Amino acid sequence: MLNLRYFLFLLAFLPSLTFSQNLAEKLGYPSDTKLLIIHGDDVGVSHSQTKATFDAMKYGIVNSTSMMVPTGWSAEVGEMAKEMPTADIGIHITLTNEWLNFNWGPEAGRTAVPGLANEKGHMYPDCAQVTANASPEEVEIEIRAQIKAANQMGIIPTHLDSHMGCVFYGRPEYLKSYLKIAQELNIPAMINQQMVDGIVKPNSALFEGINVEKFPVVDQLFMAEPKDYEAGMEAYYTKSLNNLTSGLNVILIHLAFDDAEMNAVTKGHETYHAPWRQADYDFFTSEKARELLKKNKVQLVTWREVGKTM
Amino acid sequence: MLNLRYFLFLLAFLPSLTFSQNLAEKLGYPSDTKLLIIHGDDVGVSHSQTKATFDAMKYGIVNSTSMMVPTGWSAEVGEMAKEMPTADIGIHITLTNEWLNFNWGPEAGRTAVPGLANEKGHMYPDCAQVTANASPEEVEIEIRAQIKAANQMGIIPTHLDSHMGCVFYGRPEYLKSYLKIAQELNIPAMINQQMVDGIVKPNSALFEGINVEKFPVVDQLFMAEPKDYEAGMEAYYTKSLNNLTSGLNVILIHLAFDDAEMNAVTKGHETYHAPWRQADYDFFTSEKARELLKKNKVQLVTWREVGKTM
Repeated sequence: MLNLRYFLFLLAFLPSLTFSQNLAEKLGYPSDTKLLIIHGDDVGVSHSQTKATFDAMKYGIVNSTSMMVPTGWSAEVGEMAKEMPTADIGIHITLTNEWLNFNWGPEAGRTAVPGLANEKGHMYPDCAQVTANASPEEVEIEIRAQIKAANQMGIIPTHLDSHMGCVFYGRPEYLKSYLKIAQELNIPAMINQQMVDGIVKPNSALFEGINVEKFPVVDQLFMAEPKDYEAGMEAYYTKSLNNLTSGLNVILIHLAFDDAEMNAVTKGHETYHAPWRQADYDFFTSEKARELLKKNKVQLVTWREVGKTM
Repeated sequence: MLNLRYFLFLLAFLPSLTFSQNLAEKLGYPSDTKLLIIHGDDVGVSHSQTKATFDAMKYGIVNSTSMMVPTGWSAEVGEMAKEMPTADIGIHITLTNEWLNFNWGPEAGRTAVPGLANEKGHMYPDCAQVTANASPEEVEIEIRAQIKAANQMGIIPTHLDSHMGCVFYGRPEYLKSYLKIAQELNIPAMINQQMVDGIVKPNSALFEGINVEKFPVVDQLFMAEPKDYEAGMEAYYTKSLNNLTSGLNVILIHLAFDDAEMNAVTKGHETYHAPWRQADYDFFTSEKARELLKKNKVQLVTWREVGKTM
């Protein structure tokens, strides 16, 4: 009986006892495990993107994605997710519309958040224009509208992240709303140490009430740049997979087919365009990518799993 | 000198002298001419639709189109129109969103016109739900928002028409706003005698201030129905072209390619789907269609030309 009491006593303190565990340990792996999320951004932006991303989750090693909500194809994400009910799907908070011929406006509507819409009612093409025009209140309204609409399409997000990083590169208040809402939903919001050190800590009064320590922090973030595309994606991703370190690694990729639709969406762009996205698809559905995971003893994890440690 | 004065005197009365001319005569053709507009609906709904329609205007006998504005691909219409500056492009007033996986909300924003958006922020799939939910004021705001946004994309509309006919099949006030705005713009709004007799005349007080007689009335409207698609589109359109009568004929078609994007847009629909639209494209870019025009002595006219008689 005494033993049981002692056990219950210990159990009550378990959260504090586990405090010093790192993320890998919390997930039940050795402390030096190379954890990896292979994250296909932008589902919902086009049929091509959504189909390629779900295919790469089914047939390749991609294990997480996040959804653009104000775009025309967001409902298809809800439909495709029905066939993969445990898929890791976050909300790719979208404040920009970077394409020439394929457009969308804010989910909350241009009347509710006029600072997020240009004179055509479409979102601005880059983060700088968002920062110049959108108030923190408008961004928070828009983030909530996107999550609500995703819910209505059947998506309960496993995590939040930010399209083109506008939440990170804009006003600190944007990052605050992003973390505050993730905290309310008790899900991870993608963040790394530079953001904590560069934005949160210098604005500690603004971030009051947000338990930043609770959020799993990404240790290494990989995303191909134009020079990597030019040198060849296979070389870039091979190097990335050979250079993962212990802790939480995230590779951000953009999967689509090099087809008529995707070429029309990305028309006029020489980067992140249809052939770039096809190259991402080709690598992350290849046998070689699978072998590199094995060779480097990489442990794939999802945001859903990571979120359970919060 | 007297002769010249007499001539000027006559000239001053020319409008009243031409009053009894029919549309063909006003356009400079014999009174019994078979006038025809071959109208490709729905540009802007997808890349596939927009590309196929512009191709059919370039390489086929399609000579008019109208643009869906709240859809994701509307900006591409503005881009493609730059290469065809005299193309006949109207506004396909869109109050519905009939597709399962490809969605859009009202151009004016769900906050401004909540009656035009369902709980996901998308337009309703059919006219009945529009009629049940959208006030006349909301519909007028939305029509104006669509025209304004089209202008901002570089489109000065040659005419108005109505996607799925919701302006005709809804509340009489919708039709009133449609005609009122066309009158303000001094462009034709597609209308036929049944609409005049069935909606305008029984609601004459509502339509006060709208000079309905000024609008060119379509004498014969052709649009393939499911039974026509089943029996074969070539047979249907051949029969239609052989059965044109003198006056203003309009053939409404829907041109797109039977490709991955269009199949995804029209998923779950057995009519007006990708193969249906490909069949429209095939016929209206065929040599046979061109020969049928010649054989039947058909005079193609555009809404732009018809509008000049107003």
